[in-house]
Amino acid sequence: MWRIIIATEKRQLRLGAFLQGVGHHLAAWRHPDVDPRNTLRFDFYQQLARTAERGKFDAIFFADSLGVPDGPPELLARGLLPSYLEPLTNLAAIAGVTERIGLIATVSTSYLPPFHLARKFASLDQLSNGRTGWNLVTSGTDWEARNFNLDTQTPHAERYRHAREYVDVVKGLWDGWSDDALLFDQQAGLMFDPAKLYRLNHKGERYTVRGPLVAERPVQGYPVIVQAGSSGDGQALAAATAEVVFTAQQTLEEGRRFYAGLKEQLIPHGRSADSLKIMPGVLPVIGRSAQEAQDKYEQLQGLIDPVLGIGLLNAFLGNIDLSKYPLDGPVPELPVTEGWQSRQKLFVDLARRENLSLRQLYQRVAGARGHRIVIGTAEHVADQLEEWFVNGAADGFNILPPTLPHGLDDFVNLVVPELQRRGLFRTEYIGRTLREHLGLQRPRNQFE
Amino acid sequence: MWRIIIATEKRQLRLGAFLQGVGHHLAAWRHPDVDPRNTLRFDFYQQLARTAERGKFDAIFFADSLGVPDGPPELLARGLLPSYLEPLTNLAAIAGVTERIGLIATVSTSYLPPFHLARKFASLDQLSNGRTGWNLVTSGTDWEARNFNLDTQTPHAERYRHAREYVDVVKGLWDGWSDDALLFDQQAGLMFDPAKLYRLNHKGERYTVRGPLVAERPVQGYPVIVQAGSSGDGQALAAATAEVVFTAQQTLEEGRRFYAGLKEQLIPHGRSADSLKIMPGVLPVIGRSAQEAQDKYEQLQGLIDPVLGIGLLNAFLGNIDLSKYPLDGPVPELPVTEGWQSRQKLFVDLARRENLSLRQLYQRVAGARGHRIVIGTAEHVADQLEEWFVNGAADGFNILPPTLPHGLDDFVNLVVPELQRRGLFRTEYIGRTLREHLGLQRPRNQFE
Repeated sequence: MWRIIIATEKRQLRLGAFLQGVGHHLAAWRHPDVDPRNTLRFDFYQQLARTAERGKFDAIFFADSLGVPDGPPELLARGLLPSYLEPLTNLAAIAGVTERIGLIATVSTSYLPPFHLARKFASLDQLSNGRTGWNLVTSGTDWEARNFNLDTQTPHAERYRHAREYVDVVKGLWDGWSDDALLFDQQAGLMFDPAKLYRLNHKGERYTVRGPLVAERPVQGYPVIVQAGSSGDGQALAAATAEVVFTAQQTLEEGRRFYAGLKEQLIPHGRSADSLKIMPGVLPVIGRSAQEAQDKYEQLQGLIDPVLGIGLLNAFLGNIDLSKYPLDGPVPELPVTEGWQSRQKLFVDLARRENLSLRQLYQRVAGARGHRIVIGTAEHVADQLEEWFVNGAADGFNILPPTLPHGLDDFVNLVVPELQRRGLFRTEYIGRTLREHLGLQRPRNQFE
Repeated sequence: MWRIIIATEKRQLRLGAFLQGVGHHLAAWRHPDVDPRNTLRFDFYQQLARTAERGKFDAIFFADSLGVPDGPPELLARGLLPSYLEPLTNLAAIAGVTERIGLIATVSTSYLPPFHLARKFASLDQLSNGRTGWNLVTSGTDWEARNFNLDTQTPHAERYRHAREYVDVVKGLWDGWSDDALLFDQQAGLMFDPAKLYRLNHKGERYTVRGPLVAERPVQGYPVIVQAGSSGDGQALAAATAEVVFTAQQTLEEGRRFYAGLKEQLIPHGRSADSLKIMPGVLPVIGRSAQEAQDKYEQLQGLIDPVLGIGLLNAFLGNIDLSKYPLDGPVPELPVTEGWQSRQKLFVDLARRENLSLRQLYQRVAGARGHRIVIGTAEHVADQLEEWFVNGAADGFNILPPTLPHGLDDFVNLVVPELQRRGLFRTEYIGRTLREHLGLQRPRNQFE
């Protein structure tokens, strides 16, 4: 009977809450309803996590970057600085005060030995009872490289090749113990079954790692592997290794093309379409009426500092100095960056398609940094999500609240009930682990 | 009036609770009152932290090692494995569920870029409201090196030279923001004072780091810097940089000599004797009568697996294969190790002084791995602590419960009240931060 109910249940969408400081909009911190000091307060993040858990989100999600960007301090001081707590530390503390919600941390493969990464996630998975996900990124800026004994970043293709090896090492370390290795037999004096400890002995292009970790196998086998890179290299890595992809797509057509293309790339890896969930980012601006929502958005747009807007474009277009181009002229031709390639392409495509000047482009992306913006009532937002979800453009969405905490409150109080009414989203958690929330299988141990 | 009370108050001793798995004794996990599965359970550590906080301890403390030792799995399976959660992850989670107690994590300088370390501690200090301490160690084994692209550990002296540079980098990163850098001026659109961001631009023998962190300055200025190395190199590093030293001394005479010697080494650095707290380790076995305590100890000793005992000596004496020496013969002459030099010396000195065979030596150190063992009633334990404290051998103690949770419960329920009755230990927390608990000054920013 139970099985029949499950089988006939409507396909459910997945929701992530992307929590970035006091909100995603470039001017969020200047909004009168926002306390910008919250960006460094643990009780603020704790409260956001509880709100998302009340809304039955699959997971909360923290981005990351490794340092302070280049540029004159006077420019940075205007707010380009992403001043947040280190994600794994913050999520470990949040794990202690939440019960069910998934916890996804961004950690770059570029400058952290894989042994440390594998161990931290194994510990976090342990203490959260299987609720962790790792958003794998490679660091794409020179200013991050300079905090780690380098002058410049590693080239794009090489970074992704290293990341592939990195994931192999990390999985091999997570598999260092059989699920049933630990015995704790006090009488026999046998802590574990000696046949069930697996030394990795990895020797690759970049890493030599013996293993295993000092820990048991993670509760989920592996924490859920998430990726955001949408370039060619990024998609190839995702097809091989990711279970969730956070992507940025502007139109339904683009979304469908990306979705179909990436799912197809799973086939040569012997993976089912269901084994990778595609969750585009959406920045919802929610009002009780369409006009109220539009007014909210205009209020935020009016707070954008033009100097910051251009600074944002500089960063996302590949550290090009745009100051020599007229602000009301077109976006110039750009060389392919070794930085964030997919984001550069997305911005240029957007400008060409909508015939935007540099000024119009930064106004257009200041809210969501290239993610889709949906402005309107809860019904309108739900319509927009449903449209992508039922038309093959998304398995779910990563929600980017424009301001925090209010943007998240609005979504949980207004949009989530509407999605639930439509039978598109859970009303209670059924599973315990993040894998169970997302409908992902627990991976087998490669050594067995 | 208040000032007079402070000034005339008896000198107070400091207490750390060294929490290692299910207890420090080599056979703790086999004790019938112990559940060995607790070693991987977060709620267990949470409970221990709350008990220590109830006992007004200055801090809890986690040790660390980076991997699984060498040796046949059959030997490791007997219990040599230190199976614990990664300390910073565990302490971040504990920070969320405690209020006042200090949180000291061991992190090795050997294989983690200093930018990551500085950032993690800055975040933990932030979210714990200034309760963190960093126990700085260098990794001293080949089996750890092999998890990080190396075949062998770095030689002892070089390791400590690198550690010195590492601490400079970490402090420089913590000083990357003035205490009053953040403005969050919403009207002016100014997040911080651009004159108060300090790029480190460190270029040294081993590290090149630009800085600053993406964070404000830690609540404590710097998290409290703790060290345990007691070799010549270790003491030199401690005199230059440590604020707490966890040491292992067996006799009052040794303790006094170490205490006086290390405090004297502070002088050339322009540091006061008070700026470094020396806290020897003590493993207390507590009974309602002397006989009960002795019986408890014998029960644990009776559970020691001889194969494990010799394994322990192998590890601490520098990975010497001791199997060719008779178990009931003397400890042989040993070459100076590139591993844990001070621990090797302590073990050899102990064996020579007490004329111990190899078997007697492992029995002697199985409880506390070279730390002092005190067996008796709460009054006796308090007497022993007081004797060292008033006779210039200690500013406080790092308490190693032989089993957990009972060993910690006994200390908090029986010994702490006795120390409080004698006016040697606080009855309530006065300060908020770990620095305040320990009576350590908040460091000034080096760039100001």
